[in-house]
Amino acid sequence: MSQYHPLTPQEAIELAKTLPGPFTADANLECREIGDGNLNLVFHITDQNSDKSIIIKQALPYAKVVGESWPLSLVRARIEREILQEEYRLCPGMVPEVYHYDDDLALTVMEDLSDHVIMRKGLIEGVTYPLFAQHIGEFMARTLFFTSDLGMNQQLKKEKQGRFVNPDQCKITEDLIFDEPYRIAEKNNYDASIEDEAEALRTDGALHLEVALLREKFLTHGQALLHGDLHTGSIFVTPESTKVIDPEFAFYGPMGFDVGAVLANLFLNYASLPGWIQNETALHKRETLLLDMVRDVWNEFETRFRALWVSDLVDPMAKAPGYEDLYVQQLFRDSIGFAGTKMVRRIVGLAHVADIDTIPDAAEREHAQRKALAIGKTLIKNNRRLNTIGEVLDLVSTAISSIKV
Amino acid sequence: MSQYHPLTPQEAIELAKTLPGPFTADANLECREIGDGNLNLVFHITDQNSDKSIIIKQALPYAKVVGESWPLSLVRARIEREILQEEYRLCPGMVPEVYHYDDDLALTVMEDLSDHVIMRKGLIEGVTYPLFAQHIGEFMARTLFFTSDLGMNQQLKKEKQGRFVNPDQCKITEDLIFDEPYRIAEKNNYDASIEDEAEALRTDGALHLEVALLREKFLTHGQALLHGDLHTGSIFVTPESTKVIDPEFAFYGPMGFDVGAVLANLFLNYASLPGWIQNETALHKRETLLLDMVRDVWNEFETRFRALWVSDLVDPMAKAPGYEDLYVQQLFRDSIGFAGTKMVRRIVGLAHVADIDTIPDAAEREHAQRKALAIGKTLIKNNRRLNTIGEVLDLVSTAISSIKV
Repeated sequence: MSQYHPLTPQEAIELAKTLPGPFTADANLECREIGDGNLNLVFHITDQNSDKSIIIKQALPYAKVVGESWPLSLVRARIEREILQEEYRLCPGMVPEVYHYDDDLALTVMEDLSDHVIMRKGLIEGVTYPLFAQHIGEFMARTLFFTSDLGMNQQLKKEKQGRFVNPDQCKITEDLIFDEPYRIAEKNNYDASIEDEAEALRTDGALHLEVALLREKFLTHGQALLHGDLHTGSIFVTPESTKVIDPEFAFYGPMGFDVGAVLANLFLNYASLPGWIQNETALHKRETLLLDMVRDVWNEFETRFRALWVSDLVDPMAKAPGYEDLYVQQLFRDSIGFAGTKMVRRIVGLAHVADIDTIPDAAEREHAQRKALAIGKTLIKNNRRLNTIGEVLDLVSTAISSIKV
Repeated sequence: MSQYHPLTPQEAIELAKTLPGPFTADANLECREIGDGNLNLVFHITDQNSDKSIIIKQALPYAKVVGESWPLSLVRARIEREILQEEYRLCPGMVPEVYHYDDDLALTVMEDLSDHVIMRKGLIEGVTYPLFAQHIGEFMARTLFFTSDLGMNQQLKKEKQGRFVNPDQCKITEDLIFDEPYRIAEKNNYDASIEDEAEALRTDGALHLEVALLREKFLTHGQALLHGDLHTGSIFVTPESTKVIDPEFAFYGPMGFDVGAVLANLFLNYASLPGWIQNETALHKRETLLLDMVRDVWNEFETRFRALWVSDLVDPMAKAPGYEDLYVQQLFRDSIGFAGTKMVRRIVGLAHVADIDTIPDAAEREHAQRKALAIGKTLIKNNRRLNTIGEVLDLVSTAISSIKV
């Protein structure tokens, strides 16, 4: 790791020139650092003489949001690159292609997806993604099934699990999702207007029990190789295409953690809608669309996951009668529980979502925050007894009907 | 690994002479190879001029029972040595002390425990071990608690988990315990007289479902650093002392797998007793003693485990109200389920137990086999609904009352 240093844009261009592709000798390269995350530099390098472009992503050894006081292992760059390659193998076309990497510099050179937009931004702008549920259902079903004991050799899985031990990244998740929102913590971040909600999170024993059980799953249940941070800010979309990026939180964990991330971020956008849409009819239509997406994402995922169970099962005992149903039921419940924890942390924890934080009107913003917390808490508290996505949507409807405005 | 070769007894003596202790320059060393296992050479080296002695244990690169056709990774020697050191740190005096090791030769030089006997042998001979339940309860409570997220830093645990990925050894367990007894498999091994029982194991869907769920736990649930093979053949005892040996199957898995191994092997001895004791009164007394040991092992373990929860918990969310009880309940259920699978495999799978296999009378032997299977199956089938060790003992009593003799 001795040669590691953060690249300058000029160094990024020099590096790009040395690559076997995609640029020709007469390329006229320009570079912009476009990283808006906390953990990485992202160089967008374009050839002014052609339409060729690449991305160079380099990990920083600390979290920008906190400064150099929060050191992070650069191993995550290797993990991110390897999982991009793994996901590409399992779902070609659904993640950026890796062209080149340098583990010493903690960087990966990859396909430029700037013709796509970050899904969170698209959702806030009201764009519709009719193929998203199918795409993400397929992505999750294939990446989770084929990296689990169900779909791959159990010994190879253990070796893979060893390669993807990711303590630094997991610690961020453990703290920010499964600990700090439920106590007074320096990194928590919420408006004074919802202090009553934050206080309620700190004193609700029944909630803490469910969070402890979900935390235990996150800490111990090495079920499949997760993306680990599958929110709508980690998904690039067009109405025709879906590309999953940023798997630097990848590790072997409970499948429901990835599925729950997608559901949670759709619910977060749903909760934000009255802050963005004044027209009642338009609002209702968009709200219905978001809840339909939640339903579709689960259903598409379940359908594809069960199809793989039929076609690609390798575990010798997994054909036991009733096992598939119990497995999917538990995966569903985990997904709902994790979705709840991910919603709660986005309101009172360190990192929020633009869907809600950028609502211009303060009262609408507060309303969206309370709504998101109500949904999150009901998902957490009921996760162990739920069986269908219809039940979940009913529960959500009940939970938000009682919010003080 | 290039310099690896199995040592001859003479080479073992030469190695012993080079060690800084325990032998003096005028030592007159003798060496016997005393390994009765399948996987290792065990050299017992004694000084004829003093009472000093050591053990040199060396891993073989294949399983002796099957021959060189079953290759095994020598990494297990490093894993075994490291876990002996870890267990010694957590429970000094309850495992042999490691004096020296050589990872290239896959060998460990350790304390000689030949003043102890293998517990399985002692139990078959009718010896009583009044302190065993306390000792093993303490051993399991401390080693399991302090290597789990409950009792150690969660990031360090992940690193430790990475060091103890043990695919070859786990595969043996996965195949022999959670797969082959439930189908026709070449390595299965049972008397023709219980073909009806073997057939029943292969066709019982409800049983297969529970085995599949337990197998999934074994494959995915990285709860604590297990011994991994904690049967009474891996425990050296005297009436005053208990020493756990042979942790070469160590890996991060479900706690109940270790607890269940102890319970299963006590039940196996219990099932064998009519084959060894003719006198009705003596038989009844010994049977009661064995069932009391089962009860005591669980109770001693639970008491100590809960005490550590009070004194040494490090996980921030684990104080959630009700979490400790749910955790212990699940651990209990897992222990019972795993105990059942370990009993079944010892009757129809590859490796049996001397408690039953060496019963001289064929009819008594068959009876013991049927009894062990009845107990094993009832533990497996009921594991997910049991709450107390008293319920377990009642269930065992019911199960064996219906056996055809």
